[in-house]
Amino acid sequence: MLLKLYLSGEIHTNWREDIMKGCQGLDVHFSSPVTDHAASDDCGVVILGQEPDKFWHDHKGAKLNAIRTRKAIADADIVVVRFGSQYKQWNAAFDAGYAAALGKSLIIMHEAEHQHALKEVDAAALAVVEKPDEIVSILKYVLEGTLN
Amino acid sequence: MLLKLYLSGEIHTNWREDIMKGCQGLDVHFSSPVTDHAASDDCGVVILGQEPDKFWHDHKGAKLNAIRTRKAIADADIVVVRFGSQYKQWNAAFDAGYAAALGKSLIIMHEAEHQHALKEVDAAALAVVEKPDEIVSILKYVLEGTLN
Amino acid sequence: MLLKLYLSGEIHTNWREDIMKGCQGLDVHFSSPVTDHAASDDCGVVILGQEPDKFWHDHKGAKLNAIRTRKAIADADIVVVRFGSQYKQWNAAFDAGYAAALGKSLIIMHEAEHQHALKEVDAAALAVVEKPDEIVSILKYVLEGTLN
Amino acid sequence: MLLKLYLSGEIHTNWREDIMKGCQGLDVHFSSPVTDHAASDDCGVVILGQEPDKFWHDHKGAKLNAIRTRKAIADADIVVVRFGSQYKQWNAAFDAGYAAALGKSLIIMHEAEHQHALKEVDAAALAVVEKPDEIVSILKYVLEGTLN
Amino acid sequence: MLLKLYLSGEIHTNWREDIMKGCQGLDVHFSSPVTDHAASDDCGVVILGQEPDKFWHDHKGAKLNAIRTRKAIADADIVVVRFGSQYKQWNAAFDAGYAAALGKSLIIMHEAEHQHALKEVDAAALAVVEKPDEIVSILKYVLEGTLN
Amino acid sequence: MLLKLYLSGEIHTNWREDIMKGCQGLDVHFSSPVTDHAASDDCGVVILGQEPDKFWHDHKGAKLNAIRTRKAIADADIVVVRFGSQYKQWNAAFDAGYAAALGKSLIIMHEAEHQHALKEVDAAALAVVEKPDEIVSILKYVLEGTLN
Amino acid sequence: MLLKLYLSGEIHTNWREDIMKGCQGLDVHFSSPVTDHAASDDCGVVILGQEPDKFWHDHKGAKLNAIRTRKAIADADIVVVRFGSQYKQWNAAFDAGYAAALGKSLIIMHEAEHQHALKEVDAAALAVVEKPDEIVSILKYVLEGTLN
Amino acid sequence: MLLKLYLSGEIHTNWREDIMKGCQGLDVHFSSPVTDHAASDDCGVVILGQEPDKFWHDHKGAKLNAIRTRKAIADADIVVVRFGSQYKQWNAAFDAGYAAALGKSLIIMHEAEHQHALKEVDAAALAVVEKPDEIVSILKYVLEGTLN
Repeated sequence: MLLKLYLSGEIHTNWREDIMKGCQGLDVHFSSPVTDHAASDDCGVVILGQEPDKFWHDHKGAKLNAIRTRKAIADADIVVVRFGSQYKQWNAAFDAGYAAALGKSLIIMHEAEHQHALKEVDAAALAVVEKPDEIVSILKYVLEGTLN
Repeated sequence: MLLKLYLSGEIHTNWREDIMKGCQGLDVHFSSPVTDHAASDDCGVVILGQEPDKFWHDHKGAKLNAIRTRKAIADADIVVVRFGSQYKQWNAAFDAGYAAALGKSLIIMHEAEHQHALKEVDAAALAVVEKPDEIVSILKYVLEGTLN
Repeated sequence: MLLKLYLSGEIHTNWREDIMKGCQGLDVHFSSPVTDHAASDDCGVVILGQEPDKFWHDHKGAKLNAIRTRKAIADADIVVVRFGSQYKQWNAAFDAGYAAALGKSLIIMHEAEHQHALKEVDAAALAVVEKPDEIVSILKYVLEGTLN
Repeated sequence: MLLKLYLSGEIHTNWREDIMKGCQGLDVHFSSPVTDHAASDDCGVVILGQEPDKFWHDHKGAKLNAIRTRKAIADADIVVVRFGSQYKQWNAAFDAGYAAALGKSLIIMHEAEHQHALKEVDAAALAVVEKPDEIVSILKYVLEGTLN
Repeated sequence: MLLKLYLSGEIHTNWREDIMKGCQGLDVHFSSPVTDHAASDDCGVVILGQEPDKFWHDHKGAKLNAIRTRKAIADADIVVVRFGSQYKQWNAAFDAGYAAALGKSLIIMHEAEHQHALKEVDAAALAVVEKPDEIVSILKYVLEGTLN
Repeated sequence: MLLKLYLSGEIHTNWREDIMKGCQGLDVHFSSPVTDHAASDDCGVVILGQEPDKFWHDHKGAKLNAIRTRKAIADADIVVVRFGSQYKQWNAAFDAGYAAALGKSLIIMHEAEHQHALKEVDAAALAVVEKPDEIVSILKYVLEGTLN
Repeated sequence: MLLKLYLSGEIHTNWREDIMKGCQGLDVHFSSPVTDHAASDDCGVVILGQEPDKFWHDHKGAKLNAIRTRKAIADADIVVVRFGSQYKQWNAAFDAGYAAALGKSLIIMHEAEHQHALKEVDAAALAVVEKPDEIVSILKYVLEGTLN
Repeated sequence: MLLKLYLSGEIHTNWREDIMKGCQGLDVHFSSPVTDHAASDDCGVVILGQEPDKFWHDHKGAKLNAIRTRKAIADADIVVVRFGSQYKQWNAAFDAGYAAALGKSLIIMHEAEHQHALKEVDAAALAVVEKPDEIVSILKYVLEGTLN
């Protein structure tokens, strides 16, 4: 069994790398959004032309990014969404809802402090974790049936 | 043509009532989440039994609320999601993503200050507005083809 | 909001009637399998002709019953499945799985003694209850947003 | 033609191995739930943290197991469900219902003694068998068109 | 529960009327193809213009008839297909396959003489009958749970 | 049988009214896009605010119109698309493709001169007509089985 | 582009081999039902046990064959259905209807004499042919864009 | 991540080749309609027999081409539709609508002069471009997250 994961959400810590490192040797395929913040913000206008209005500047970029994220979520078996301690991160919650409606297995990662605010998102998940190594353990168990 | 709307998001101002009042006489049906904050938070444990752990307290409640919200979103033609100026409102963004994946027509309402943080959500919408009367005007136009 | 419920499972106690009585005045529509045990067992051969082999006797009946149950589950918003203290009740668990795959809101009702054996079924549910009046309270809350 | 099978149900006899052995040389791919009973029961709390309440202990584990079983059933062409002579096995019947709703080809395996209790499950199946070698013969016939 | 039936197949005997008469008082809605043979054959060219080539003459008519039959099958809960003793009746078998793929409950009606030739069609059905009164009994049982 | 029609395409002649008049007494429900050209072009900026760039001016309007057209096409049994003798009418062809992918019954109306240019669109249709009265005759036949 | 074809219908002439031979070198994958008539008729009782009643004898066999045919049709891009000059061939028409409902590209092959009887089936097809070499030419054109 | 693109629309300039050349080294797979105009127009009658009536001549051809285009669009992640400066190009707009209804990511390419006429098509797209190199830049960004 090969598991395809989409790693959505927070881009300012290296939680993706931690998961990937921990999964070496497992039959897992990872995808993620573009995590270069500047490129992600400006891709629309750099490629398709400048916009004087910030709304359309962002609109063009968000749509280009959607080409990647919609494809990656649609292809995924498991969508992991990480909520960090900063920012609104509404796109992360949007991805979680989008994945839930498609019937994907959801894993949500966040600190205890956000528990109440994330209760609806957590309630749609098959696992709620705090740290990358929990996800590594989940994947190892799901694929190999072993608890280390 | 009858339009069914689900009004998701912020529960501390009376934007829902403003829309409903403005739509009197239009062929529109509204639904919304439970907007009694205390009831919404505690429904799970009141009905199904207390939980010492806040996570499961919230989990039980969020799942009962999901019975209502999933049904209402599935039945809706248009999902309006209002982001207020306070709180994380991740459940609002989750609803927006959920509705987008089901192919619902999305209308997003928020102040200009949240424009950048909501760019991915806005990019999935058919309209982005700031005030309830814009939504009233949209519904009037969509149903009757007239601009007042 | 009208909620359509399918009441699946145990047929030897009057839990269905208890729920229906408690829901008087709520905008709820109920359906259920044929609960006349003898008719349910023999419908196939009474209508379509006797079978010397018990397997085909049951096969014909189960398929006629499926005409009703598949329709009722497909039409339902909420599928309630009650596991009693007797019998294998594999058809109840089958209905639960069938409803889960269709994305229906599941409510499971059983005594505490069956908790471990039903853990996979419970994990797919939005609520797990022991008594009919909990279901009445859930429906009242979901429809009216009130906790009595 | 490659056939993907998910082997659900009873975990205390070696029926899975018997089928796999009999299918050597056929273009068949097998998957199954985690069959290590202790790991399957405790995976949730071992990975995600202890729970004082058995319900939540089981809940966490059942959801982790669902990541594997939902993926495996979704990927399968044929879902085989084996009902043994012991235990309630409601998860097996749940899997059968889940697979039926997804339109999977169902093969049900059980002793004659359970025939009446499984009539609804059997009625949804394309084959009802008692022994692993019948399944091997079915797969050989379906893939190669030959009866030995 | 309201049951919607589509009555497909043989048009030279009055089996449809027999079923409808027997179902008086039941909550059943019937639809059927156009059973005026001449109108059904010529509708295409009468409305859309003559065709010198019989293939296109029939093609135009078959497509107009498809507007009705596709709608009626899509709306139906149960599709009854009657195979008479004459003609090829490939359109009846086509309707049966079409309905099966949509997950409709199939009831097949034919004389014993056609049993072997219809085995694949019968195997997809929830009931195989010879006479209209069996269908009436099925509908009465499915709707009211009673065997007369 | 009630037939729901969406009348897409050309807005400068009164073909819609001709069809509606001819269908009086038939069980038919009609919907259409906003046919007030000025309102349709400017709805976006009038309701949601002016745009200096014509692209975004049109973009806002097209999305508001999509709320109506997507809903109407999704609800329709039959989508009629009329191509007139003027303009590019790419939105009409877009609607036809959109409806075809949803499995709607398509009827295409155009003069003979456009036959070659519309061959792919016509090939997806169940009827190709030149005049409104042909559509009236089709609906009469589909609903009542009669050719006048 | 790889095209997957399912070759359904008549099993007494070598039309399948003719197509396969003609397609050598093209990126085409073929599947077909079991064409050993005796094995196909008796597979059910040989593998699963004798039945005194011919109906159940055939029923068991038809269901085993359905494991193969449903999988092959579901996987196919193109379903070719050949109607020969003999027999009722209702299973062929059933396959055509089943494939049509799944949105598969249908190619129907039959002699001119059956044109009228097959008009509904032909009307659902993207091509109607008489001979295998027409199918070879179609596949060559579809894959390579060339007419020889 | 592999991206599959279908390149629909204008066939008289070499925009497809420009995109393919620019994408060398990227993990992209391209498909397109048959771009040999004469073959595309005449394939139906060359393979399936001449037709005296131009409508059926075109009809046969359009259906053979649909075997290819429907398959290619269904398989695609991204559908690019190019509108040139000549011809009605209704098939291009039809493909865009078809792809939109299937939830594909749409990229529309056209000169500024057609902006107003294409506003509904553009509004359904995730990007609107004028030149092939913009599409190359989009694909590079979507796959590699880099802006050159």
